[in-house]
Amino acid sequence: MSRATPFKMRFVHLDLKGAPPKVSYLSEVFPLFHALGANGLLIEYEDMFPYEGRLMLLRAKHAYSPSEVAEILRLAKLNELEVVPLVQTFGHMEVYYLGEGETSKQWLQQEQNSLAKLCLSHMQAVASHVLAQHPGTTPLVWDDMLRDIPQDQLKASGVPQLVEPVLWDYGADLDVHSKIFLMGKYQECGFQRLWAASAFKGATGASQALPPIEHHVRNHEQWLQVAVSGPVDTLQGIILTGWQRYDHFSVLCELLPVGIPSLAACLQSLVHGMIVLGPRPPSMEKELSVNGFLRQPLVLTWSTQRSGGPSDHFCLWVVSGGFAEDVKLRVEHFLGVSSLEIMDTVSEGAGSFPGSDIHALVTQVSLHLRSSVDTLLERNRYVTGWFSPYHRRRKLIHPVMIQHIQPEALSLLSRWNNLVQQLEVALQLAFYPDTIEEWLEENVLPSMQRLQGLLQDLGEASTPLPLPPPPSSCWDTGQNP
Amino acid sequence: MSRATPFKMRFVHLDLKGAPPKVSYLSEVFPLFHALGANGLLIEYEDMFPYEGRLMLLRAKHAYSPSEVAEILRLAKLNELEVVPLVQTFGHMEVYYLGEGETSKQWLQQEQNSLAKLCLSHMQAVASHVLAQHPGTTPLVWDDMLRDIPQDQLKASGVPQLVEPVLWDYGADLDVHSKIFLMGKYQECGFQRLWAASAFKGATGASQALPPIEHHVRNHEQWLQVAVSGPVDTLQGIILTGWQRYDHFSVLCELLPVGIPSLAACLQSLVHGMIVLGPRPPSMEKELSVNGFLRQPLVLTWSTQRSGGPSDHFCLWVVSGGFAEDVKLRVEHFLGVSSLEIMDTVSEGAGSFPGSDIHALVTQVSLHLRSSVDTLLERNRYVTGWFSPYHRRRKLIHPVMIQHIQPEALSLLSRWNNLVQQLEVALQLAFYPDTIEEWLEENVLPSMQRLQGLLQDLGEASTPLPLPPPPSSCWDTGQNP
Repeated sequence: MSRATPFKMRFVHLDLKGAPPKVSYLSEVFPLFHALGANGLLIEYEDMFPYEGRLMLLRAKHAYSPSEVAEILRLAKLNELEVVPLVQTFGHMEVYYLGEGETSKQWLQQEQNSLAKLCLSHMQAVASHVLAQHPGTTPLVWDDMLRDIPQDQLKASGVPQLVEPVLWDYGADLDVHSKIFLMGKYQECGFQRLWAASAFKGATGASQALPPIEHHVRNHEQWLQVAVSGPVDTLQGIILTGWQRYDHFSVLCELLPVGIPSLAACLQSLVHGMIVLGPRPPSMEKELSVNGFLRQPLVLTWSTQRSGGPSDHFCLWVVSGGFAEDVKLRVEHFLGVSSLEIMDTVSEGAGSFPGSDIHALVTQVSLHLRSSVDTLLERNRYVTGWFSPYHRRRKLIHPVMIQHIQPEALSLLSRWNNLVQQLEVALQLAFYPDTIEEWLEENVLPSMQRLQGLLQDLGEASTPLPLPPPPSSCWDTGQNP
Repeated sequence: MSRATPFKMRFVHLDLKGAPPKVSYLSEVFPLFHALGANGLLIEYEDMFPYEGRLMLLRAKHAYSPSEVAEILRLAKLNELEVVPLVQTFGHMEVYYLGEGETSKQWLQQEQNSLAKLCLSHMQAVASHVLAQHPGTTPLVWDDMLRDIPQDQLKASGVPQLVEPVLWDYGADLDVHSKIFLMGKYQECGFQRLWAASAFKGATGASQALPPIEHHVRNHEQWLQVAVSGPVDTLQGIILTGWQRYDHFSVLCELLPVGIPSLAACLQSLVHGMIVLGPRPPSMEKELSVNGFLRQPLVLTWSTQRSGGPSDHFCLWVVSGGFAEDVKLRVEHFLGVSSLEIMDTVSEGAGSFPGSDIHALVTQVSLHLRSSVDTLLERNRYVTGWFSPYHRRRKLIHPVMIQHIQPEALSLLSRWNNLVQQLEVALQLAFYPDTIEEWLEENVLPSMQRLQGLLQDLGEASTPLPLPPPPSSCWDTGQNP
């Protein structure tokens, strides 16, 4: 029995266009990435790159300095992580609006021209330029624009000799058969080497704060099946993307420390989720004991060996157990958590991994801050019945009701103030001030402001207004219900 | 087979301490009250009474004039509705804080004194005063303070000879047996005549906008069972309360026109929900055909007749079908609605009863205004991902996103503006300006302001800010995703 992952290369994607980590935090997580089974990094520098000269205005306020970039590369090497830099050329804007420029429109009016041809000629030009300047480089391209281009056009473009496509799919319901079909198409067009891209965070909603781990693990299980069932030796590796924003204008998705448990589960599923048994004929067993844990053989594939050996007797018996019990235990060990429940959105356990305090506090905020404030403001009977928008605009309240509302509101505010202060301290160790400001403003401030607003109005309503004197001493102003 | 309701008197409660109807609206609903089976009104004037002299400052801004009160009484008489005025003496404040005044505290320090005695002596004093001034009057008292007073104290107080208790319970799960027990206790203390109080609205939540009809119908079904099963000829009638506020400091509950379908279902359940069969011995039939509709005998009671006739053979066979199909048809007929589903919070059908337009529009607002705005602001992916609190504070948006948000927001605003305008017109026919202001401020304004706020911020964000000129013409400012 042998054990192998079909993905030789396993790149962790660092999307720096939002919430870029400080180098000190990267120095803590790179060893964990390595331990979890990563052997590469795809670094999408974006505006964190220390651009100079006429490109200097692209730099973010807290862009890495050249020495920090050097340090990142040194740390990557130290942890046996091969670095692939990601540089946007086309990006979404260009491909979404391809052919809409004036020059392009004129070019497209010529009969033999098409959008596909326009796209391919651009890729061809960029890739040729890169290869001319840096002959040792291999350009990779995200494959969405290539998928639907007819085979003959792809083949004729010369692009398959210049780039290696990255087939990407971040879905939990990824269609294995379509992917295998696409791999075949690319091979026929002349693409020799292909890549896969999955996601461990940042792919299930622009404003997602906590990664749905089960979704991401299932995405990786599907990719495992593609790798095992598709053409042999074609997929060079997999890039585990961790998007930080959908684009520069969108909100932050899950912060990197909050995505670590998902990354761990995904990487370990890739590395240990698959067992290759052979050479012997498959039997009808329903379960196999692996390291003392039972696994169900989900995928059974057998084929003749390509070279050497008795070709018609050789079998590959592949067992994909996905996120099996032994994988779960490994992940829990690496994270220092007592139990990781991937069925929940996120585990609330603290853990001992770098940024586990951020993970725990963000989980608290995301699951409970807004709902606790909503409960007070929208479901508490005293607030909804006696200190509603109508009363608050007029700063009017029955004196007795203050005692039904104020202590609870103060206690809630104090509880969250404490937690948010802890979170700020934790965030400062991993992130720059603008990230902290943005995350808190987006995820904390609206609820805190609502709570403070209630207390502010309550304070103003509690201050008694001067009233006309009652006509006789037995008439108790403002007390009659 | 005979048909009778055990409640000879059926009073509709008009709580005027919030949303008092204009006299013109009362002139429209009194005939409906009569047609539905009411034969009395309990009018809780509160600050709508045209107080004069030193009490004048109690008057509400839009208090009825003396001639309007006379007109209300004339309209009531015209529609065969006996009027009982409700005048607060104790109220909630006094009973909630009974014994907390300095004089009371001193009085309570004497050994033979107690809170119960204090309460009874107050009732005794007020009732004696009323009877001395108006000998033909019968004071009724809400019974909550009497319930727990020991029988001998009640008996000794003299109160049973002065007032008639109103046993009130607005719950759908009213405990029939406890009520019967309580009736027995009051009788033993010397109270000769008792009253029941149910609710058709204003009893299920201080900020309830739409009455849960099923709750109220079930409340009346339970009261029917109390009346049939309890001591004979004791309950003089039932008061169908329709609270308008929990107290003067709370928000408005269901407006009267919005409560009409519930009132209709409750009154008709009282009048037609009960069939008395007799005299013959009960059989084991599971269903009885009444006017062509099948009803299940829910309550079977038989007793010997009290006077005259062959006493040991006489039987009363009572069938409480509650809100049976024939009762439902009657209610639908009276309201002019095609189908009244009491299981829903409220029927959305328009109807032809007085204020049915208010009922329909308030239903729309209550069910859909807030949820539609929430959906746009909190679930629309473009708003949550690209125009979040963070972006809105900075008036920043990706230009493409404006088109994903603005048309939907404008269309929603326009739809609700139209509906709210219709509602305002409808409300003006039934209510005074302060009621309309309060209801809209409470139920409409917050959502409309949120929607307008989004559009305001979107407008400001759409205005392009001056940017530094790009370094070369190929660099497209602000478009790179």
